Amino acid sequence: MSDQIPTQLRPVFFLSNRTAITAETLGQSLLAQFPDTRFTSVTIPFVDSEKKAHQVVEKINTAAARTQLKPIAISTMADQHISQIIGQSEALFLDVFDRFLPNLEQTLHAYSIHESGQSHRISNQSLYESRINAIDFSMIHDDGMTTKRYDQTDIIIVGVSRSGKTPTCLYLALQFGLKAANYPITEEDMDSEQMPASISHYHKRLFGLTSDPARLAHIREERRPNSRYASIEQCRFEVRAAEQMFDQYRIPYINTSLMSIEEIATKIVEVAGLHRISQPMINHLDVP
Amino acid sequence: MSDQIPTQLRPVFFLSNRTAITAETLGQSLLAQFPDTRFTSVTIPFVDSEKKAHQVVEKINTAAARTQLKPIAISTMADQHISQIIGQSEALFLDVFDRFLPNLEQTLHAYSIHESGQSHRISNQSLYESRINAIDFSMIHDDGMTTKRYDQTDIIIVGVSRSGKTPTCLYLALQFGLKAANYPITEEDMDSEQMPASISHYHKRLFGLTSDPARLAHIREERRPNSRYASIEQCRFEVRAAEQMFDQYRIPYINTSLMSIEEIATKIVEVAGLHRISQPMINHLDVP
Repeated sequence: MSDQIPTQLRPVFFLSNRTAITAETLGQSLLAQFPDTRFTSVTIPFVDSEKKAHQVVEKINTAAARTQLKPIAISTMADQHISQIIGQSEALFLDVFDRFLPNLEQTLHAYSIHESGQSHRISNQSLYESRINAIDFSMIHDDGMTTKRYDQTDIIIVGVSRSGKTPTCLYLALQFGLKAANYPITEEDMDSEQMPASISHYHKRLFGLTSDPARLAHIREERRPNSRYASIEQCRFEVRAAEQMFDQYRIPYINTSLMSIEEIATKIVEVAGLHRISQPMINHLDVP
Repeated sequence: MSDQIPTQLRPVFFLSNRTAITAETLGQSLLAQFPDTRFTSVTIPFVDSEKKAHQVVEKINTAAARTQLKPIAISTMADQHISQIIGQSEALFLDVFDRFLPNLEQTLHAYSIHESGQSHRISNQSLYESRINAIDFSMIHDDGMTTKRYDQTDIIIVGVSRSGKTPTCLYLALQFGLKAANYPITEEDMDSEQMPASISHYHKRLFGLTSDPARLAHIREERRPNSRYASIEQCRFEVRAAEQMFDQYRIPYINTSLMSIEEIATKIVEVAGLHRISQPMINHLDVP
């Protein structure tokens, strides 16, 4: 069997006694290393009792019997007793805490508390609130709706329609706690070849997004089929005009065509030299 | 030194040749297991060349010299050559790929491609677009602004002002690709003791958020100090009325007071039996 391409999808379980977000994120990074293997994954959060652990084992073993493939279980299961129960299933069991905590305990000269999912609990109230405030801010300052609190913004994303401004701003706020506004560059701005007056005052906080005209046309076509807005000529014109404006005013910019929201947001933080707050649990007091 | 509480913060580095989101998420889960140790972390994404790797080593070693503490480096560095360079630093080097790929290769009878950060690249265009569409949908359907496309919604979050509806919806859209609307319960609705007509038709998609009155009052106080809106009496009244409505109409609900956005969103997906799409790279074809 091992030499054939299996017709069955390999079953994968992302498990945790809390949200399973860490297990899922990590697991996806690992599985992406095997592009020729086809997986089917299920995420099971809140596996926080013996009873639930036994149910998971049953699910794993049923999947193994059905597919005739050894399932993979990737977990953040800090409770060692529950971890041991899952470990008795037929899956290849890869637990983050099992693998990394012993080394950390040794280096830190401290025992771990063996409680999973602390990282997605609220442990620092003021940092948590600053993240919520960033989301509020980004919602209010979407699509140039208002510019009145631009003095408080960490970054102002500029670009043509459908270049990815809104998702990027929301991600910057949600994940990194940054106050991110966004401002659309309109045809009027392009014709005048001037930066809009409302943002020119905040020149140093501007960051541009651009896109390949063909990709932009494809995305716009979904939104308004057969429109001038979605035509390749219009997209070419707008992209060229926007990039000229970015160059003219020395606004840093990136082409988002082949980038995910995570990549765009991470790149902006890096290029603009911003400080990512991210999860509200670690002392982000200083850069070592 | 090992028996004393160090006065220095332990330096931690989250490293990757891509976004470092996985390294950061995982690292925070691990460090949260040591609540008595104080850390200071820095995230360095895009470590994708020998030159950058050597710069990272220098930063690590400088931090070690300054603090007299062994730094911790948590990484997703699929390029083995770069990984080896970082491994020569003075840090405890914990790399995800190092630890997990050998077992996976054995079980899958396949070699990994050793390319990091695949999981945050766009590999499935249509799934990626459905995530962007979910964000658009959730933005348009925030705060009851419109109800016209409620027939397409995956979930409608209801609750009083500042119970966490907006961040939860955005997270559901961004992270899980779900079309999440939210609708505020107003005093008028509470007085009439009736579910608002515009949402009663979508009864089965409703999910309620509630909060402890004291916590709610604290959050509202930040927004409108000394207002009736932020008074404990008003918060008590609204929470009680909202919970009564949830009970009366059998709308599932959770108290969000001590929960992070991640926990609220994960819990809703679980209780409402929704399917989390999450990152657009794995075949989510079926539940094993």
